[in-house]
Amino acid sequence: MEESYEKEVLYPPQDYIRVNHEDLKEFVKKVFLKLGVPAEDAEITADNLVTADLRGISSHGVARLKRYVDGLRNGVVKTKPKIKIIRESPVHALVDGGFGLGQPVAYKAMKIAIDKAKKNFFGIVGVRNSNHYGIAGYYSLMALKEDLIGISMTNSRPLVAHTGALGRTIGTNPISFAAPSKEEPEFVLDMATSVVPIGKIEVYSRRGKPIPEGWAIDEEGNLLTDPSVALKAGTLLPLGGLGELLGGHKGYGLSVMVDILSGILTGANWGPFVGPTQGPEPSNVGHFFMAINVEAFMPLEEFKERMEELKRHLKTAKLHPKFKKIWIHGEKSWLTMRYRMKHGVPLYVKVVNSLREVSKEVGVELPF
Amino acid sequence: MEESYEKEVLYPPQDYIRVNHEDLKEFVKKVFLKLGVPAEDAEITADNLVTADLRGISSHGVARLKRYVDGLRNGVVKTKPKIKIIRESPVHALVDGGFGLGQPVAYKAMKIAIDKAKKNFFGIVGVRNSNHYGIAGYYSLMALKEDLIGISMTNSRPLVAHTGALGRTIGTNPISFAAPSKEEPEFVLDMATSVVPIGKIEVYSRRGKPIPEGWAIDEEGNLLTDPSVALKAGTLLPLGGLGELLGGHKGYGLSVMVDILSGILTGANWGPFVGPTQGPEPSNVGHFFMAINVEAFMPLEEFKERMEELKRHLKTAKLHPKFKKIWIHGEKSWLTMRYRMKHGVPLYVKVVNSLREVSKEVGVELPF
Repeated sequence: MEESYEKEVLYPPQDYIRVNHEDLKEFVKKVFLKLGVPAEDAEITADNLVTADLRGISSHGVARLKRYVDGLRNGVVKTKPKIKIIRESPVHALVDGGFGLGQPVAYKAMKIAIDKAKKNFFGIVGVRNSNHYGIAGYYSLMALKEDLIGISMTNSRPLVAHTGALGRTIGTNPISFAAPSKEEPEFVLDMATSVVPIGKIEVYSRRGKPIPEGWAIDEEGNLLTDPSVALKAGTLLPLGGLGELLGGHKGYGLSVMVDILSGILTGANWGPFVGPTQGPEPSNVGHFFMAINVEAFMPLEEFKERMEELKRHLKTAKLHPKFKKIWIHGEKSWLTMRYRMKHGVPLYVKVVNSLREVSKEVGVELPF
Repeated sequence: MEESYEKEVLYPPQDYIRVNHEDLKEFVKKVFLKLGVPAEDAEITADNLVTADLRGISSHGVARLKRYVDGLRNGVVKTKPKIKIIRESPVHALVDGGFGLGQPVAYKAMKIAIDKAKKNFFGIVGVRNSNHYGIAGYYSLMALKEDLIGISMTNSRPLVAHTGALGRTIGTNPISFAAPSKEEPEFVLDMATSVVPIGKIEVYSRRGKPIPEGWAIDEEGNLLTDPSVALKAGTLLPLGGLGELLGGHKGYGLSVMVDILSGILTGANWGPFVGPTQGPEPSNVGHFFMAINVEAFMPLEEFKERMEELKRHLKTAKLHPKFKKIWIHGEKSWLTMRYRMKHGVPLYVKVVNSLREVSKEVGVELPF
């Protein structure tokens, strides 16, 4: 039964088609190649976008391709950025992304962190002059594949009102944290520090369902329940909601923490100054990565065994009568990925149309 | 006006007295000395507890003295622990706390992190075989005093039900993050990963007010509004509340992240296995600290200037009509500390009585 689990169920059925993930990736890669992006960078970015779709985070998948293409075509995003290491030590680096696509810049930065962690137990890498890097979890997963703990965070365009404020003042600034264990699925936290990402509101809008009070406010600060109003003129709330009663100041604090590490410390833009991918100014997004070699603290096998015990314990706790099962972070995305690799990635007709537009603009045939 | 701000207002007025913070600290220190705790450790622990009271986090202040005394007297907490460095590199250490008081162990661990960060830009220290370490912010503040970014986290006794589960399965596992700026108050995030700490429910109980739905559940998983029931047989909810609708799985994920770094990675206890300070078994709490020298990324003065801009920007955002002002993390505690240093630390009669009990048991005169 769980084999057919998908984290995200597209709706209604006549509004989407399923496409093979390899065909999809090949198309995206060719688009970037055609625009002058080097082969390795095109491969990384295509893999990043399709991985988001495979893992059930379609808001960060190929639905965003048009924006990247627009940014590259108008020159705000550089096709062949000069990526430079500005400062470095045995355990850290500060990377200048040269205003290239966020994904290859972030990939190379996390690679540096991984290499340093293998040699010296820790790798800590900050990035400036970058762009939207896709899902935060892509980079913590890179560390996981090397049996390291991975941490990934980024600042992002302002979509959230901080506690007590009105308007879009801070980003949804996500945090991802992944830790290796003996068995899959491994623990992979990948969360926006807002109560929901904007994509969640799009889902409710599509289904014509009111959104729960506590997700978004309007321009005067009133709680919104109409998803279409929320999408047009709304502002997301930090994790914990409006005010301090349910802990909204904590989500606000976590978002600012991510901004301090990703934006302030690296010399990137921060808060409301982080721009959109399409320009007119370079968005200058900042990222922060960390890889931890568990051998700094204990043998890897012992750590993995302990992680297995932790997961087992969480999974087998007494079940709340209103819930069907207990989930571990990363489990839903892992199941979704397995299902979609077999059965295809579902894409809304609207998304397919945006890909068709890109296909025509750039001159790369759409394989579906 | 703000000079008289207190984060936490005790209630009703006839139920508390104000005492001089230096007298209070002296008393606490003498109690530890009398029990055989070395002078430096007694000083650190007394300072930690009174700092919590000064900063308006009285749940972690001298109200807890009795528990520490009980733990020390029955031998579960060691008065003269053998604190050992188990593993070490130029940027990290794993410390065995020898089952001593959490505060001196954590203080020494953060000191190691600070020294390493000054020499090699980063200091990352894990701790096992420790005890409750007081407020998480005490240690990030230590880094701040040295112009470093400070990160402090710890696991703690299970008081929270993770998403989908029933009963006390995970800790309130706090995170503190502090970053230097030119002016005080500096950005100091110090938050439990639960929607509220248990102390918040005690406040509502005292005032005879129902708690908001979303803070705690009963043994069957129903949302509680009666604070006295919540205190007796309730379970706290993770930040984001019950289920996933308002992001409860995110608070759950952050709590597990803290447990992986503090407990799993260090070899300490974790999840439901973290015991109380009074025993019968050693609680074996685990901590995780990090100090970051901003000079690894940019000149300190530039960073501080950028922090100042960030704070200014957050403070002067358009005000939500339902709020009186916008706060920065750490600001409330800083104002409270300034006020209480002048006007005294407010202690409930109940807390004074518990100190009197300690005073008699240990044979140290209570100065008020």
